[in-house]
Formats: sequence, C-alpha cells, structure tokens
Amino acid sequence: MAQLPTVEDVARVANVSRQTVSNVLNSPEIVKPGTRERVESAIAELGYRPHASARRLRTRQSSTIGIRLDPVVNGISGSILDRYLHALTEQAAQRGMRIMLFTATDPVDEIEQYRNLRDGADVDAFVVTATRYEDPRIEWLIRERVPFVAFGRPWGEDLDSADRLWVDVDGYAGTYEATRHLIGRGLQRIGYLGWPEGSGTGDERRKGWAAAMTEEFGLDAAALDALTHRTEEGVPHARRIVEELFAGEHGLDALVCVSDSLALGAMMAVNEAGQKKFPVIGFDNTPVAQAVGLSSVEQRLDLVASATLELLMGATGRRVLPHGEPASSETHRLVTPKLVVRRSSHLAPVEE
Amino acid sequence: MAQLPTVEDVARVANVSRQTVSNVLNSPEIVKPGTRERVESAIAELGYRPHASARRLRTRQSSTIGIRLDPVVNGISGSILDRYLHALTEQAAQRGMRIMLFTATDPVDEIEQYRNLRDGADVDAFVVTATRYEDPRIEWLIRERVPFVAFGRPWGEDLDSADRLWVDVDGYAGTYEATRHLIGRGLQRIGYLGWPEGSGTGDERRKGWAAAMTEEFGLDAAALDALTHRTEEGVPHARRIVEELFAGEHGLDALVCVSDSLALGAMMAVNEAGQKKFPVIGFDNTPVAQAVGLSSVEQRLDLVASATLELLMGATGRRVLPHGEPASSETHRLVTPKLVVRRSSHLAPVEE
Repeated sequence: MAQLPTVEDVARVANVSRQTVSNVLNSPEIVKPGTRERVESAIAELGYRPHASARRLRTRQSSTIGIRLDPVVNGISGSILDRYLHALTEQAAQRGMRIMLFTATDPVDEIEQYRNLRDGADVDAFVVTATRYEDPRIEWLIRERVPFVAFGRPWGEDLDSADRLWVDVDGYAGTYEATRHLIGRGLQRIGYLGWPEGSGTGDERRKGWAAAMTEEFGLDAAALDALTHRTEEGVPHARRIVEELFAGEHGLDALVCVSDSLALGAMMAVNEAGQKKFPVIGFDNTPVAQAVGLSSVEQRLDLVASATLELLMGATGRRVLPHGEPASSETHRLVTPKLVVRRSSHLAPVEE
Repeated sequence: MAQLPTVEDVARVANVSRQTVSNVLNSPEIVKPGTRERVESAIAELGYRPHASARRLRTRQSSTIGIRLDPVVNGISGSILDRYLHALTEQAAQRGMRIMLFTATDPVDEIEQYRNLRDGADVDAFVVTATRYEDPRIEWLIRERVPFVAFGRPWGEDLDSADRLWVDVDGYAGTYEATRHLIGRGLQRIGYLGWPEGSGTGDERRKGWAAAMTEEFGLDAAALDALTHRTEEGVPHARRIVEELFAGEHGLDALVCVSDSLALGAMMAVNEAGQKKFPVIGFDNTPVAQAVGLSSVEQRLDLVASATLELLMGATGRRVLPHGEPASSETHRLVTPKLVVRRSSHLAPVEE
C-alpha cells in the first residue's frame, strides 16, 4: 500500500533510531521521558499507526481463522459449506476475527498449508471440514498443538477426546423428525432413499429414519431393508431409481431422503408418474428445496458457526484459546437440525 | 500458536540483542561476520523461521486479497458470488496469494473495513462486488490509491478510466446467444421475462434479447415491450406471472429469462399448464438449472477470476501492482458467457 508513514519516518522526524520507536510502542517504560515525548509527537504528527503485522509479531495473534475452501462444486448440496462459511465469517467479525481462505489439492498438501500459515502466524486456528476416518490432518494438528475445530464428528474414534474439538449436525435427529412428521400424517409405508452404506453421515441419517419406523411400527431389520433404496448422490440417479420403483409394485406411501439432491430427483419422478399424493422430504434445506417447495431438514449452520467459535474462543471471548486449554469442559457440540415443512410433505393422504 | 522459537530465543542463544538478530535477517551486510555466524548457528539450532508478519512488515506485501462476503443469501442465484470466490481462491493460490474474508453492514462500514485492512497491511488489494452508481467504496479506494478490481462495470461512468480496473460478464452477449438459439429452432414469439427497469445488469440482458429479435424480425420498441414481462427476482413471482400469462391469450412460443430463479418459476408454471413444448432459458447456470434440466447462460466465473488476477497482478505476476501502474493498457475485461443447452430448450416445435 502506498504512502503510509512507517517506523522509519517516525524515527527520522523524532531523530531517534528505529529501535527506540519500537521501544516506545512496545516497552515505553524503558524509554527516557523526553525521548518518549519526542517520539509520541512524531507519531501524532505523521498519523503513524502501529502496523497490524508488527502487532501480530509481538502478540503472535493474528485474529484470523484459516479454512480450506473446496474446489467449485456443482451439486445442489455443495452450498452447505458455503453457507457455513457465510455464517462463520459474520459471527467471527462480531468477535473481531477474520477468515483466511486457502486451497489444497489433498490432505498432505493441506497439512503443508497448515504448516505455512502456522509458521507465519497468519492464523490463530483452523476449521477442518470433510473429516474422515484416521484423518492425517487431525493427527498433525493435535501433534503440533495447533488450535482447531473439526466440522464433522470423529466417526469411529473417541467422541470425547479433549484433544479434538468438534461440531456436527445431528443427522439422526433430523431424519427422525422427518419420519415422525410423516407418521403423524397417517402414513405407514415410509421408504428411505439414501447413499450406499459406509458414509458416517449417511448411515447416521438412516438410523434416525429406522428408529422412528421401529418405534412406531415395530419393524425388524429385514423390514427396514425392504423399505431402503440406495444410490450415489445426484439428481438423475435418484430420479432413475424412483422411476423404476413407480414402474413396479413399490407399495410405498412416502420417501425420506438423505439429501436434497436425492429428494429433488425423487420429486421429479413422482411428478412425472402423476402421483399427486406422495410426500418426499429432503435433507440440507438448500435454496433449491425452498425454490421448488420441497420439505427438508435444515442444518442450522448459524448454530454450527456459533458453536465453532465458542469452542475455539469461549462463550464471548475475542481470542483463540491455546490447544489443550478449552474454554470449558465442553469439547464438542451436536446441533439439532429442524424440519422445514413445505408443499412436498403436504401431499399426504390426510388432507388438512 | 505455541512453542515456536522467537527472535528473542535466537538472541538469547547467540548472546546478542534482538536488533542484531533482526539485522542478520534483514541487513546481514551490516553485521560483523563472527556475530553473523553465531546468529545463523542459533537460527539453525532452534529451527527458527522468520515470521511472515515480520516479512510483511519489511515488504509491506501480505500476499493476500481482501473481499467482503455478503450475508447468507437464500435465492438460487445467490451462489454466483460463492462460485466466483471458489475460482478466485484456487487461482490466487497458484500465484501464491490467499483470500481474506470480512463482512460489512453497509458501504460506510465496508470502507472502515478497507481502512483497517489497509492500515494493517493485512491485504495488498481488494475485490469489490455489487457495485452501484456513484459507489462511495470505489471513490474511497481511488482516492486512497489502494489497488482494487471491481466485479461489475461502472454503469453510467467512464468505462475506460485507468483509475478503475473492472471485470464483468457480458450479459448482452448471453441473452443474445440464448435468443439466437431459439430463433434457430424456428421460434418467433420469444418473450423476455426480466426484472423491473433500472438495474444495469438487467437492462443490459434485455438489450441482448431485443437486439436478436430486432435483427431477425425487425421488431420496433412497441413490439418488444409487448413481448416483455417484468417481476422482482424470485421463483414464486415468476411462477405467478407466467401462470397469469397462460390463463390468457399470451401468444408466446418461448421465454428468455434474466435469471435462473425467474426461469425456474416459469418452468414450473409451464409444466403445470401442461405445455409440453414451451422452451425456457435462464441465466447464471446455477446448480438448480443443472439439476432440473434448465438451459441457462453460464457466466464463466473461472474466466472472471483469472481476469481479476491478471488486472491486479499482470499475466503471470506474483505480486499486486501499485495503484495506477496497471500491468498493461488493459483496464477492464468483459467476459463473454456461453449458453448451456439442456432439456428445457429442446422443447421446441422443431423436433430433432
């Protein structure tokens, strides 16, 4: 940036060394009063403002949180992390914090980015997304004692480890509520349209549906399997599978879906089949769900963002707490999502 | 961050002052060789790495570009800036640059954020989005000689001012291509569904449609007005207006729309009316357009992002150029969008 007064300018005007200016700024008690006044006059005269980089250098605090931005995604659920990023940026600003974005090609590269940003004191902490089993990024952050919060629980590991702060959305609670909503409308043969087995997030969402169905109708595993249909993420995949279902004797009354993409594909097949009373519910409450009138489970990313900051900085704090010194005994937060009811779940046999 | 060696640690181990360590790092030629070796040994022994903040302080370069992130938006077109942000972050990384996000409640607050980030040398340049007539943010940036690029042309002002670098998408070219595409399919009564008059972006998009219609069919202003329908942005608004059109004698063969939101609402009304052969084309090529098979004009945000960086940093540069020293005589770039053809524009009377 051009034409800002520097420490050198102050030193020249006050006729002292740079070090003396630095001492006046950082340790005024060691500077003789007369010299101090001269430097302070020069600072006022020039309108010099201590440099944020210099402050960071002294305090080793950058008031910045780093987060990797994923490559451009085209799926309709891809906007979840963008919406989280918006909420995080807004809430961080209220605590005087900013967000630094970077990219990485793979976990090894991401760790290299962590190292650069850590070594440069460019960030005080990281938010880690898209976590997986035995995540090398998490292992590095813990080993290096770098403050971080994971968005995504440590599937299959110690959920209560004090080393690992995390926030997540309770997918189980979301599909449970969606299924209960349909049961409350008098529906019985409520199917589940999900991803292939083995995704922590997907498996958890199916469990919520299964719990409600078992609780209400006493279904066993075989009966639940018979009501479960699976496909890869993507509108056309879901559309095809539901078209095939409707071509045969499906016996279904409604579908709870693991994502809005699958729900949208299902809705399109339902409309084409002329099925006027077949409710579909999605998950993520994406803008497209709102646009087409699809009931969907809202992740409440504002609460996820506030939980992230509370774990990193305490309830009202304005600086990141050191690794291993959590604000409280709380090491994680599971946010309960909520069902947003729209036209697509009013298509039930029980008219209101 | 914890436990990184500091300048003080190096000074203690080498038994010199902090200033001497700083001199070895920044001006080694002024340090006596014996002292220099002692300091260099201490640096190696401790694994001290010069602090990025210190480097920034010396160079006054932060390798960071600042951009305001808008509040969470729920419209389906709201993801345009997010997709630009993804492309910008990825391409900036290839030049060793990072992106700093911040929020602002209004233009005055945004200028205050600019000032803080500028004074702190936290960023080297800004990207300004959502520009408007007589934008106070632009005026401030020019006055303070802060490097910036605007995403959005300076409507009504000097497009070629060397003070004001900008990139934009050529909306005129986009709707022109969409309209030409429909004309090529043998359609004649091609309507335009747009926003209320007075939006620079919206007015420009209508002009592209009008140019193609005038060129092909010799329509005058009155005939163009008769084919134009306007509504606020939003799926339900568009749905309602097209439902009303279909309830009467609309005489339309197809619709070119100013946004995917309006196009999606139009598509829903078209489907409900059982109009199997009524093409609709949107603008923005949002994920929802892809999901529902809507033809749409793609903004090519990857080209917008590369143009942003080329204007700020030159064709291959790795640092932001000072204000008023552009990389070339190029002060702006108008990116030509391209039509993505999907099912919604294959619904033409000419069967293939």
